Amino acid sequence: MKKAKVAIFGASGYSGEELVKRLSEHPAVELNCLTSRQYAGKKASEIFGWIGRHSPLAILSFVEPDPQSLAPLGIEFAFLALPHGVASEFAGALLDLGIKVLDLSADFRVKDPSVYELFYRHRHPAPDLLKRSVYGLPEIYRAQIKRADLVACPGCYPTSILLPLLPLLRSKILRLSSIIVTSLSGVSGAGRKSEPELLFVECNESARPYGLPLHRHLSEIEQELSNVAGESVTIQFVPHLIPLNRGIITTIHAEPVTPLTVDGVRGIFEQAYGTESFINLLEPNRYPDVKNVVNSNRLEIGWRVDPRTGRLILMSAEDNLVKGAAGQAIQCLNIMNGWDEALGLRN
Amino acid sequence: MKKAKVAIFGASGYSGEELVKRLSEHPAVELNCLTSRQYAGKKASEIFGWIGRHSPLAILSFVEPDPQSLAPLGIEFAFLALPHGVASEFAGALLDLGIKVLDLSADFRVKDPSVYELFYRHRHPAPDLLKRSVYGLPEIYRAQIKRADLVACPGCYPTSILLPLLPLLRSKILRLSSIIVTSLSGVSGAGRKSEPELLFVECNESARPYGLPLHRHLSEIEQELSNVAGESVTIQFVPHLIPLNRGIITTIHAEPVTPLTVDGVRGIFEQAYGTESFINLLEPNRYPDVKNVVNSNRLEIGWRVDPRTGRLILMSAEDNLVKGAAGQAIQCLNIMNGWDEALGLRN
Amino acid sequence: MKKAKVAIFGASGYSGEELVKRLSEHPAVELNCLTSRQYAGKKASEIFGWIGRHSPLAILSFVEPDPQSLAPLGIEFAFLALPHGVASEFAGALLDLGIKVLDLSADFRVKDPSVYELFYRHRHPAPDLLKRSVYGLPEIYRAQIKRADLVACPGCYPTSILLPLLPLLRSKILRLSSIIVTSLSGVSGAGRKSEPELLFVECNESARPYGLPLHRHLSEIEQELSNVAGESVTIQFVPHLIPLNRGIITTIHAEPVTPLTVDGVRGIFEQAYGTESFINLLEPNRYPDVKNVVNSNRLEIGWRVDPRTGRLILMSAEDNLVKGAAGQAIQCLNIMNGWDEALGLRN
Amino acid sequence: MKKAKVAIFGASGYSGEELVKRLSEHPAVELNCLTSRQYAGKKASEIFGWIGRHSPLAILSFVEPDPQSLAPLGIEFAFLALPHGVASEFAGALLDLGIKVLDLSADFRVKDPSVYELFYRHRHPAPDLLKRSVYGLPEIYRAQIKRADLVACPGCYPTSILLPLLPLLRSKILRLSSIIVTSLSGVSGAGRKSEPELLFVECNESARPYGLPLHRHLSEIEQELSNVAGESVTIQFVPHLIPLNRGIITTIHAEPVTPLTVDGVRGIFEQAYGTESFINLLEPNRYPDVKNVVNSNRLEIGWRVDPRTGRLILMSAEDNLVKGAAGQAIQCLNIMNGWDEALGLRN
Repeated sequence: MKKAKVAIFGASGYSGEELVKRLSEHPAVELNCLTSRQYAGKKASEIFGWIGRHSPLAILSFVEPDPQSLAPLGIEFAFLALPHGVASEFAGALLDLGIKVLDLSADFRVKDPSVYELFYRHRHPAPDLLKRSVYGLPEIYRAQIKRADLVACPGCYPTSILLPLLPLLRSKILRLSSIIVTSLSGVSGAGRKSEPELLFVECNESARPYGLPLHRHLSEIEQELSNVAGESVTIQFVPHLIPLNRGIITTIHAEPVTPLTVDGVRGIFEQAYGTESFINLLEPNRYPDVKNVVNSNRLEIGWRVDPRTGRLILMSAEDNLVKGAAGQAIQCLNIMNGWDEALGLRN
Repeated sequence: MKKAKVAIFGASGYSGEELVKRLSEHPAVELNCLTSRQYAGKKASEIFGWIGRHSPLAILSFVEPDPQSLAPLGIEFAFLALPHGVASEFAGALLDLGIKVLDLSADFRVKDPSVYELFYRHRHPAPDLLKRSVYGLPEIYRAQIKRADLVACPGCYPTSILLPLLPLLRSKILRLSSIIVTSLSGVSGAGRKSEPELLFVECNESARPYGLPLHRHLSEIEQELSNVAGESVTIQFVPHLIPLNRGIITTIHAEPVTPLTVDGVRGIFEQAYGTESFINLLEPNRYPDVKNVVNSNRLEIGWRVDPRTGRLILMSAEDNLVKGAAGQAIQCLNIMNGWDEALGLRN
Repeated sequence: MKKAKVAIFGASGYSGEELVKRLSEHPAVELNCLTSRQYAGKKASEIFGWIGRHSPLAILSFVEPDPQSLAPLGIEFAFLALPHGVASEFAGALLDLGIKVLDLSADFRVKDPSVYELFYRHRHPAPDLLKRSVYGLPEIYRAQIKRADLVACPGCYPTSILLPLLPLLRSKILRLSSIIVTSLSGVSGAGRKSEPELLFVECNESARPYGLPLHRHLSEIEQELSNVAGESVTIQFVPHLIPLNRGIITTIHAEPVTPLTVDGVRGIFEQAYGTESFINLLEPNRYPDVKNVVNSNRLEIGWRVDPRTGRLILMSAEDNLVKGAAGQAIQCLNIMNGWDEALGLRN
Repeated sequence: MKKAKVAIFGASGYSGEELVKRLSEHPAVELNCLTSRQYAGKKASEIFGWIGRHSPLAILSFVEPDPQSLAPLGIEFAFLALPHGVASEFAGALLDLGIKVLDLSADFRVKDPSVYELFYRHRHPAPDLLKRSVYGLPEIYRAQIKRADLVACPGCYPTSILLPLLPLLRSKILRLSSIIVTSLSGVSGAGRKSEPELLFVECNESARPYGLPLHRHLSEIEQELSNVAGESVTIQFVPHLIPLNRGIITTIHAEPVTPLTVDGVRGIFEQAYGTESFINLLEPNRYPDVKNVVNSNRLEIGWRVDPRTGRLILMSAEDNLVKGAAGQAIQCLNIMNGWDEALGLRN
């Protein structure tokens, strides 16, 4: 099999690091280029202690991000694990060079530049590219991803919220105004930033809500919910930071339009996800748990119907750096190439 | 000051241990008796490594629980840190001996024995004592606690949910059917039980919802909410286990009857709790955090009004073993004796 | 490639679980049988939450351990992840059936039954098999492992201590009586036992030495050191329990016979391990770190020479469940079959 | 009791924060001034979330450090919780104003400026003050501390190493060249610094040695050991960082001059520390554990004699921010004032 040549921009952050780990072992990928402004010139193994001396990665060094330099290398795909507002600086140039882009930032997720501006507090840097981008949630947009040259990979919270909700919204069984979501995230979700509130001593034996009431991820979550619902959806969302390295637990409350049963909900999920290899529909007595999905591209979904209130309670677990970031992006890469969707994503 | 003589039943669990720590340093208390069926005959210092050889506790041993043996010791107060269903075995005998009881179990919290039976799955062992008990939430029942001889100290989740909600329910500003609560608890909330799911490796790097849909604490939460609301209240409640030793974060969503402002809510809280030394009303830009209240009897309350949905979001933080258990019980003891409410509860 | 049929005895402990995870993805292995006395009759997915519904493991159930039942299944290899004293109950019967045994217990590591009895406090249950067993440390006994039918896989501490020390003992550069070792182990090293001291609350925010002065692993450590040194070696060893799920850090102090240099030590290590894919010799300025080797079969070795004392300080890091248990056993399986040694052990 | 007026310089670091917590509840102290260059002008409660609105601390703000401004306030004691090299900038001016200084930095611990320069890599900023300073280890220098106006409070590692070793060195029972120490420290020991390697994700599920071979604390450790031994002592010391907020475990190996017994060692410790309220000599079967001493000023000491090697193994546990920093400094304050040594240090 001819391998696809791949570059990772912003390879030194947590999502970038997970991409490096997985793409370097991906059987159909040749990882040729890692960029990092902060560490340009340093060997990857100086920053990533897990790179052993016999690893093929041991010879790679970080370089400055420069799309022009990639063409001679024959790079066909670029993953952008850059901060929002920065990814869009490079996407256009890469696409012009014929390099397909898998962007893990928020830059191309929100289709409406005015919504982007409202949530991200600056003008969208490349609004003309928005039409071209496909939201990289394979279980929903597989066909479009296959044909895309610019994939906007979803955020970690959105993945954990959308996958449980979308089939139910499509089935019109929930009161749209009743959706209330709380999520608990491990600290890697905040990125590798040297900020006081992310220090070990500040996060260990700590748990706290944050980001109220307008967390940025709401923009893409509501866009996708509205698309499927066929009308504008506004939800309540409270994220919390908890002392885990990785993982998100999401708990969603919603009122049904007409009384629901656990089995009825299962029917909808089975139809939507019965053959999806990365969605694990839990048995009725089971709860999702971060530890079941850490280092995996799986998302677990569990649910209950409260007999007293009639409300549906949906629960999901994912690894924010895998199904919530790098793993999902690789799943998209596999789809774009017509490969087995699980390549490089086992275990 | 003549000191009050005190016994702790069930002193070897986590709540019992916290009582031992704090009562042994309480300036108006003489701690005379620690019971533990499991460890009867052993020195307390064999089980609690923090008891130094120079501590007054170094000479105490655990004894079998036996109310009759307490009378000769002159015990005036007994704390019951026993499992539900067990505390009520002892309460009657203690009261008959003229010993006042501060019960940390669930046995005397729920006034209606049929509700108790529904949630705890066995008949109430001493229904006749229920009328006599006072729910030990000082900020709400201070006057009644002062006169009580049987105090039913609230559970950890109920404390974190009731204190933010009750003033607002009293003010009739919330739609009662709209209340949705998620809580995150540290592992000590599950007690010192040698069960596989409480092992370090099973809880560390794990986060999970549990106890759906009928967590036992709902019985007392809804009883107290209904009392204040003047009508039956049913709420949604999803607890989660997260990798902390101690602490609970509670996040509550509710729809207002008419539009609310952050300042309007503050006015209600200031009136209810403005002089309460163990309630910390947070500034508008602050979030509660478990690390701020660990080892303290304080409960933090923060809140936001979502301008898009109009919903009120209440957030609280407490130490489940202090304000959620032992500290609150000591606060009740102080009230019963007319002492400064903060005795033994500083830091 | 025809796959080898494999059984795992004691599959529900932490080492067993790691074997299940890795052997189920091993490209040359067909995993046919999981035994567990505790969970016999239950599906593996009920105990291991990470088994998704689409996993090939989803159909496997635990069975009672019974060597006779394996022959009809065509099992060729049995991994024993059983407590010491139990593994040896099955090894003989399995060998008689022509099934090769990879034992992760301590039962066949110590060649001298009297030493075993001294350290394990019971008579050796199958002393006649001891001659037949090979100590499963591939970097030292690769040739013997290739021909073995009974492999005694080393303990977690011994692996982290022997691999740094053996080449230096072979080179006769250390004073044998001067070796002092401290190790720090994550909690999974203690096994999946429902004991109070392994509860989350007891291990989190705790660190403690234990097992002095005669930790059981000393028996195999000193046996192997003595073998290579050609004379009896007695070391000092202090293990500590620290709040990690996985991982061991070992720090070794030793006095040289004649003055050493960092480069001189490197020369010895390069000769011994220069081509070993699972040994990572660190650059001079680097320290081993558990986080670099978690989920990996790699062992990191770093070292310093203290110019003031002349002592050599060796440091190693490994994942106690991988290179310290299941991974190393799989490495042995690969060697026994003449396969690439890294099969099933990537990442 | 007339209260002593106290200032804390560098109040926003972890040691400073612990001083603020404890001195604000100290019955004989009036805390008048908190300095912080970084946070000057901010309320202390903005940085320390544990300051409730009813706390006396709620009205305090951080100010720029300025010795001259303290005189009019009537400040009698200044605690310096500043980085090394900075504390000495202020100590002279404070002393000139008649303000006694308790310095938690390294600046006045090492008596020989050339040793300071060797270990701290800059010239000593105030060598003339070195003669005036007393090493603030109360169990050793109580009489001198009582009369001192400049107390150099020991570092966290030194406290955990010196207290077990000094009585034994005084008794001349150990071979001085044989002392080998490993210590495990929680992350707060590294200070509140926004550095990548102190982020939660980098420290959680990580454990690593560091600081070899010349950790700065060796300078004061060896100075004090040598003082007591009456000859120059050089030890081996390997510190490790482990995922705890607080706490140090130290394990010391030493060869005896003549064979030792556990009871013989106990005799020496009893004589040295039998009445010391902050030294907990453990029973023979017990091990020190960080969790027993967290938030306490106690240091636990345990020991074993290995019958095979004859070596003595000493083990200690302390809270690095209490007995290893702020608590010990307060113990010195109490001594300087002739107060009960445990004031402000209970629990």
